[in-house]
Amino acid sequence: MGKARNILFIMYDQLRWDYLSCAGHPSLHTPNIDWLADQGVRFTRAYVQSPVCGSSRMSTYTGRYAHSHGAQWNGYPLKVGEQTIGDHLRKLGMESWLIGKTHMNADAEGMDRLGISREGVIGTRLAECGFDTWVRDDGLWGEGPDGFYDERRSPYNEYLKSKGYAAENPWNENANAGIADDGSIASGWLMRHADRPANIREEDSETPWLTSCAIDFLDSRGDMPWLAHLSYIKPHWPYIVPAPYHDMYGPSDILPVVRSDAERENPHPVLAEYQKNGVARAFHRKEVREAVIPAYMGLIKQCDDQLGRLLDHLRKTGRMDDTMIVLTSDHGDYLGDHWLGEKDLFHECAVKVPLIIYDPSGGADAARGTVCDELVESIDLAATFIEAGGGEVPAHIVEGRSLMPFLHGEQPAGWRDFAISEYDFSVTQMAANLGLKSHEARLFMVADKRWKFIHSEGPGHRPILFDMENDPEEFHDLGNDPAYAEISELMYDRLGKWARRMSQRTTRSDDDLAAMKGRSIRRGILLGLYDGSEISEELTGKIRGKPKQVFTDRPGGKLKAGE
Amino acid sequence: MGKARNILFIMYDQLRWDYLSCAGHPSLHTPNIDWLADQGVRFTRAYVQSPVCGSSRMSTYTGRYAHSHGAQWNGYPLKVGEQTIGDHLRKLGMESWLIGKTHMNADAEGMDRLGISREGVIGTRLAECGFDTWVRDDGLWGEGPDGFYDERRSPYNEYLKSKGYAAENPWNENANAGIADDGSIASGWLMRHADRPANIREEDSETPWLTSCAIDFLDSRGDMPWLAHLSYIKPHWPYIVPAPYHDMYGPSDILPVVRSDAERENPHPVLAEYQKNGVARAFHRKEVREAVIPAYMGLIKQCDDQLGRLLDHLRKTGRMDDTMIVLTSDHGDYLGDHWLGEKDLFHECAVKVPLIIYDPSGGADAARGTVCDELVESIDLAATFIEAGGGEVPAHIVEGRSLMPFLHGEQPAGWRDFAISEYDFSVTQMAANLGLKSHEARLFMVADKRWKFIHSEGPGHRPILFDMENDPEEFHDLGNDPAYAEISELMYDRLGKWARRMSQRTTRSDDDLAAMKGRSIRRGILLGLYDGSEISEELTGKIRGKPKQVFTDRPGGKLKAGE
Repeated sequence: MGKARNILFIMYDQLRWDYLSCAGHPSLHTPNIDWLADQGVRFTRAYVQSPVCGSSRMSTYTGRYAHSHGAQWNGYPLKVGEQTIGDHLRKLGMESWLIGKTHMNADAEGMDRLGISREGVIGTRLAECGFDTWVRDDGLWGEGPDGFYDERRSPYNEYLKSKGYAAENPWNENANAGIADDGSIASGWLMRHADRPANIREEDSETPWLTSCAIDFLDSRGDMPWLAHLSYIKPHWPYIVPAPYHDMYGPSDILPVVRSDAERENPHPVLAEYQKNGVARAFHRKEVREAVIPAYMGLIKQCDDQLGRLLDHLRKTGRMDDTMIVLTSDHGDYLGDHWLGEKDLFHECAVKVPLIIYDPSGGADAARGTVCDELVESIDLAATFIEAGGGEVPAHIVEGRSLMPFLHGEQPAGWRDFAISEYDFSVTQMAANLGLKSHEARLFMVADKRWKFIHSEGPGHRPILFDMENDPEEFHDLGNDPAYAEISELMYDRLGKWARRMSQRTTRSDDDLAAMKGRSIRRGILLGLYDGSEISEELTGKIRGKPKQVFTDRPGGKLKAGE
Repeated sequence: MGKARNILFIMYDQLRWDYLSCAGHPSLHTPNIDWLADQGVRFTRAYVQSPVCGSSRMSTYTGRYAHSHGAQWNGYPLKVGEQTIGDHLRKLGMESWLIGKTHMNADAEGMDRLGISREGVIGTRLAECGFDTWVRDDGLWGEGPDGFYDERRSPYNEYLKSKGYAAENPWNENANAGIADDGSIASGWLMRHADRPANIREEDSETPWLTSCAIDFLDSRGDMPWLAHLSYIKPHWPYIVPAPYHDMYGPSDILPVVRSDAERENPHPVLAEYQKNGVARAFHRKEVREAVIPAYMGLIKQCDDQLGRLLDHLRKTGRMDDTMIVLTSDHGDYLGDHWLGEKDLFHECAVKVPLIIYDPSGGADAARGTVCDELVESIDLAATFIEAGGGEVPAHIVEGRSLMPFLHGEQPAGWRDFAISEYDFSVTQMAANLGLKSHEARLFMVADKRWKFIHSEGPGHRPILFDMENDPEEFHDLGNDPAYAEISELMYDRLGKWARRMSQRTTRSDDDLAAMKGRSIRRGILLGLYDGSEISEELTGKIRGKPKQVFTDRPGGKLKAGE
């Protein structure tokens, strides 16, 4: 019977749960992803802890809710002291490597405060979410009048330059741009160019490049078991893809837009603001959707082909027998559904992600090709990895639960009956438009298998409620309907219970607490005794006997030897 | 006009709010504490964040709720990364010194994980709650069959030995024991000995010793402004005090016990367990109260006399003109009230503490001798110290609010309308008896000026509710009374709001967020554009123009120079 000695943890960026043929997409065929699902378990209710890159990832990498780790938006540094997958796995003798994106921002102030050098091994890992870095590339090499969005060195741009690309920023000019009819740059940042082929060799585009990095990594491994976080930027925007993927799909292949006029009648104030923002307004337009979605599908198709390439390599090298493979995303993409663009809110297309886990061990044979409909959170992955690595999940630190039972066809006792996701939009124009202070510009989702409830901290804001059984498209917000007051109350109870949870007692495990019980009395802390007869003589031995000295003459008296 | 250049932050341990003559105690005269109250502001609704030493102190030292910092009981290490008063004040050019007790346990595992040496300046401060250590002495040198409760070196025992005390553990044998009629040790751990004088010179007992340490500290100061945390162990148990304090008070001086049979009729399960525990049962006995309370009063009287000595020194050296003086406690003591002993729960005598603040500045003249009835939390002290030190309170880290307005006779806008306290009793026998898991053995108090509400995480546990206006003695628990369901609902709303608060986003201030707004678009992250006409040309400059190269021949094609 094989065993998962290694873990290949693949994350795509902004990949919707439903843009896979195994999840039912009628025109986008993803045979390699589907094959993996056939070999493992596909989870149909996998929710991310926050529908935005940075925050979602920090939750995945720590196994903790955003409310626990505090890195609640892109670019908020993960505070020094938060423990990551890498911290947990290294204790188990497992390496933990990064190949690609994390969207991590180092807590430089915290490192300085604690005197941790950024050059040392510990500092380097702290700055990279606890990973050792094979290659770190966030795939956001945008450049504007104030310089680069990401000011680090760009491994991908360096690669392109080594391949003869002459542009100053070939990520911008080649990988993410086509050629306009007049011969000028047709940037992928402008969505009307989404149907053009990127001005790059397909094998040099981001997904094949990162796949090659991963293959190099695999070929370099020695004796240590490893986790490799292969973290693609795609199918994240800019929406543009090289040939032949750029014209594999056309407007007739795209899913009908999921939106209803009901969603624009008296919408929740936060939803209303998001429906009005620039991205949303762009996706209201048919021409945008018809240009973008085929490119998005092409990017996914390319991801699938590259997965095939990687799987071939794993098969050839025997790694399929000892490597757990996990495939997921950090959040979805509205693509115009619900009158919205981008991610950020909690409709299924944004907050739900694909999740497929292949476990090579014999114990997993019973569950191969099955689908699991339980409520899963992305924080469960850290717990799963720790269990796969042979460890015990430190429940006082990691808030997720191991998915291993599902992988082995078992139903764990007392599985969660609701999932939580959060969104902090303090930094956005939408918060400013609503006049919200930073602590008010926050949303909390509580979802069970039927109801999805969203609480807004905005003063006077009502909650949002969807009945996903009778309204799977999430068109009808029942948050204002008194007929559903009881559901809202139940959801508030759950949210309260969750919010009160013990998330910060990370320096003491339950085992530690058990060991503390009764310790102090055996070390002379003798509470509530009147004359000592209440406890055994052994415990009072140190406070009995004759005194060494007696102090008799007072005040200002002297000590003399006890009698 | 003077200004608070320094801060003398005095904390007593287990000092009840009502055992001061300025707070109305009829027989315990505390003229020095009263004098300080006359010179400053006395707060009548000062609640600690947890009615147990370690957790309360970690909240005070960090300015954060226990739910935020996670050190929720005695001995739970404060995690590396949590910032303390010392961290905040040092940035303002102010030293931060410890003289006495913190009950801090270092996060050794965290320091090792982050490669922080315990010998260096940073490591030393981390291990001491962010303070530089003048003297650290927790005053718990109990010793039993398994050794010392506190395994560090004992500065106090070293002092006693240097003074000629010959016992192996003179803290146990002299400072906290008298002599029995038969000449044997009459340990203060056994409460029937509480009326005996401790077998020690009064000036060598703990309170005068620590006061002398503080005077030495004051005499040693150079040019740097400082905060000194003068943190006494007394009037904490063991309840025994040297002459002449041992017989200053007798049974006729003690306050009547505050308890009612109503409290034993159908009590809340947690309260019921606490009423049954050893300390509580001891305090059910009249002879225990009559032995212990006079000793407790003697210990307080000694504290007051030593405060007088310290104030004299401050006056003589001119420090009264430039030193803010804060006097408080870490929690109270039941002393038999409510059928309970020790602290741990949320009746006023346990969770409310004395709080007096003297500000030497001229701006504080208007408020001298006033009493403030607003809801104050011990986390407010860190914020007050930061403001006194000339800083701006980092509200994304410190959850308390500065009390400075009250010191200057002003009413700040939007002051809190409820206070929170928490209690984690996972480690106790009471939790075990109730069959509670660690995350269930937790209580949360929500108190406003009228109602005190306590939520228990125990499955099926109802809340506790007291009407402090009509039942100031807190005898009648209305938590089960449907007539008060609305109050409970309001309190649950408040608790929910509090629990959802943003407590962990400590790496980004509101100013940081403001600076992030609009940053990405000026760095080339161009979201939601169809053709670029939506924004200024300046922003799209980097994605326009002629490409350096055009890739024409595909697949497997070549790059050639752009036309």
